[in-house]
Amino acid sequence: MTVVSLLTDFGHEDAYVGIVKGAILGVNPAATLVDLTHGIPAGDLVRAAYSLEAAWGYFPPGTVHLVVVDPGVGSDRRIVAVAAGGHLFLAPDNGVLTPVLADNAGARAVSVENRRFFLSPVSRTFHGRDIFAPVAGHLSGGVALDALGPGIALDTLVRLPLPEPEAAEGGGISGVVVTADRFGNLITNIRRRDLAGEIGCVRIGGRTIHGISDTYAAVSPGQLLALFGSTQRLEVSVNGGSARETLGGGAGDGGPGGGRYKPPGRVHEGDRVA
Amino acid sequence: MTVVSLLTDFGHEDAYVGIVKGAILGVNPAATLVDLTHGIPAGDLVRAAYSLEAAWGYFPPGTVHLVVVDPGVGSDRRIVAVAAGGHLFLAPDNGVLTPVLADNAGARAVSVENRRFFLSPVSRTFHGRDIFAPVAGHLSGGVALDALGPGIALDTLVRLPLPEPEAAEGGGISGVVVTADRFGNLITNIRRRDLAGEIGCVRIGGRTIHGISDTYAAVSPGQLLALFGSTQRLEVSVNGGSARETLGGGAGDGGPGGGRYKPPGRVHEGDRVA
Amino acid sequence: MTVVSLLTDFGHEDAYVGIVKGAILGVNPAATLVDLTHGIPAGDLVRAAYSLEAAWGYFPPGTVHLVVVDPGVGSDRRIVAVAAGGHLFLAPDNGVLTPVLADNAGARAVSVENRRFFLSPVSRTFHGRDIFAPVAGHLSGGVALDALGPGIALDTLVRLPLPEPEAAEGGGISGVVVTADRFGNLITNIRRRDLAGEIGCVRIGGRTIHGISDTYAAVSPGQLLALFGSTQRLEVSVNGGSARETLGGGAGDGGPGGGRYKPPGRVHEGDRVA
Repeated sequence: MTVVSLLTDFGHEDAYVGIVKGAILGVNPAATLVDLTHGIPAGDLVRAAYSLEAAWGYFPPGTVHLVVVDPGVGSDRRIVAVAAGGHLFLAPDNGVLTPVLADNAGARAVSVENRRFFLSPVSRTFHGRDIFAPVAGHLSGGVALDALGPGIALDTLVRLPLPEPEAAEGGGISGVVVTADRFGNLITNIRRRDLAGEIGCVRIGGRTIHGISDTYAAVSPGQLLALFGSTQRLEVSVNGGSARETLGGGAGDGGPGGGRYKPPGRVHEGDRVA
Repeated sequence: MTVVSLLTDFGHEDAYVGIVKGAILGVNPAATLVDLTHGIPAGDLVRAAYSLEAAWGYFPPGTVHLVVVDPGVGSDRRIVAVAAGGHLFLAPDNGVLTPVLADNAGARAVSVENRRFFLSPVSRTFHGRDIFAPVAGHLSGGVALDALGPGIALDTLVRLPLPEPEAAEGGGISGVVVTADRFGNLITNIRRRDLAGEIGCVRIGGRTIHGISDTYAAVSPGQLLALFGSTQRLEVSVNGGSARETLGGGAGDGGPGGGRYKPPGRVHEGDRVA
Repeated sequence: MTVVSLLTDFGHEDAYVGIVKGAILGVNPAATLVDLTHGIPAGDLVRAAYSLEAAWGYFPPGTVHLVVVDPGVGSDRRIVAVAAGGHLFLAPDNGVLTPVLADNAGARAVSVENRRFFLSPVSRTFHGRDIFAPVAGHLSGGVALDALGPGIALDTLVRLPLPEPEAAEGGGISGVVVTADRFGNLITNIRRRDLAGEIGCVRIGGRTIHGISDTYAAVSPGQLLALFGSTQRLEVSVNGGSARETLGGGAGDGGPGGGRYKPPGRVHEGDRVA
């Protein structure tokens, strides 16, 4: 009873996700399918990478994580399967696995090339259906990683240049908002481990937040706060409201089912108290 | 093969629902997960309560219904597990179970406190992942309700002041629109059992609808109608259209993935025919 | 372990899909439920028919495909169950199965009338819950098609007048955009098999596209292209962008969770190269 998680930018308006699921079950009817999310804005590799990072470790060991955010579909980009941390990952070689690879030194990777695990014929525009789905079905059914294609060195895998926090002038560190969630929480690239000591204040979009809260409810309704959220990243939020709206970040290009977020400004971690 | 239903305000843009599912399966890989809905507007306890009321009875006996609409996450609100009507419910003690408790005199409740069923560490902002999910996993795997924490008296559970229909001046009864669905049907708090006799007409937003229809197609396309819908509540609809648009109710604050509905006015059940 | 796929216009805001799933599992707890899509614009039979056509063949043989796009619910329209191509289909008799029937000469159909497979009572407004779900549960659990009701002749089933491509003046053929997907790809009713030879150019919305591409990435970012997509239909796309936006098609009436697409104009396949 192997779990297959699905992370795509397909949205929910079309039947694409359903087709991928049908094709997985066509190979392995016993797979347990779980939507990680399909709300990634079209082609947004950074958001997909962060979503995967936040989620995969909570699934049972042996889960196959299928990631189809693939703007290069049909080009000569590779498809890779990776074993890391007791889980399996199947994705285009476009950097979407960057955080997984960063945290798992003992990972192994193969280039997925063995066409006997693909549907036939393979279209040029829907590898999710014709390659990713059946390969995920076979992996979840017990086919070995090495059967899928030749092993490849980890350092040949494409990495995303994910923004790292930097030392700020005058002390403290400076980061960026990497995503906003449904509740309007602004999630930064600053992790608790990036900070040496206590935080005095957080500056963002011309506003200053004093101190770090433990919960949303620790400030009055409608007030801005900063806290370390569920992924250990610094978040800026509004109790009972939306930091995204409060700080006027702009809603981005707003495609159907998604909406890329334009961060309102760099987050500044300043004035650390020793 | 126990079913776990999930009702949240997490939406579909982020990975939160997927993470909760991963954490349930991490405890009980044999659980059958079913989305009740994740489209509850953020923090809308009333809408969550009505959605749960409409749905739970159609699931198999023994289903675990997990409700995570939890604006007080991280505060000192309790988490409760309730056995009622042959089903199990796991939710914050914020009133979201009010209709379930009203209809099940023989319910039993415990305060969920036994940390050995939680993930560790427990974050302050994502109890859905760290407490609700693993506890639902254990419940669905056969752990007894009483193992989760001490029993609590039902009358100590928080109840929502859900609006009840009232006797109207000049006869009839008066209610409110409690929600609008995707089709623009306006669903009221008036149930068939609230009415002693036949209905002569329904007044809403300055319009009068004569008689109660059996089906949407009973009136001409584009016409307003009233009927008792699938939950035995009085609904105002437009055949092939949207009563919400026709009556100009306004779309509310429209957060991403949701959109709280502002009812256009009180519904008036008048002029009952004996 | 039978798969039941679900295709509806219920959206994700309400609990309707969850209720249908609960009612299926109430009959057959071992069914594997898969969302095909719930994003069909309300009552859009054409879009539902095309979605089903694109998807069903990728599911395992024996899958029960449940289609509830049913603007005539509660009227005297029939409900039909069809065996075709090794799969089972359950739908209102409103034409939504037209492509399935066109491609499967050996299909068999019954009128679903045996109330012992329905919930009781049956509402007039939610047959998805009271009829379709339990009947799908029974079908997936092994109940024979013929047990559901009397056999009916295939030529009595309602068919949609799906638009067919036509010969164009001056050579070539002319078709229409039938849908736009999440990525803004415009999908036409022209299939590869409709064309006798090579394509010289595609004209749409006052623009001319020379040649047919194999992949989206075959043209420069932001450029229009035409290709035969994953369903073997001619698509007009923009590499890394949206043909829907580029061609100014207008977003239609945009109900919640959906958005019917108004095609910007007829597609013209002209100037075939022998």
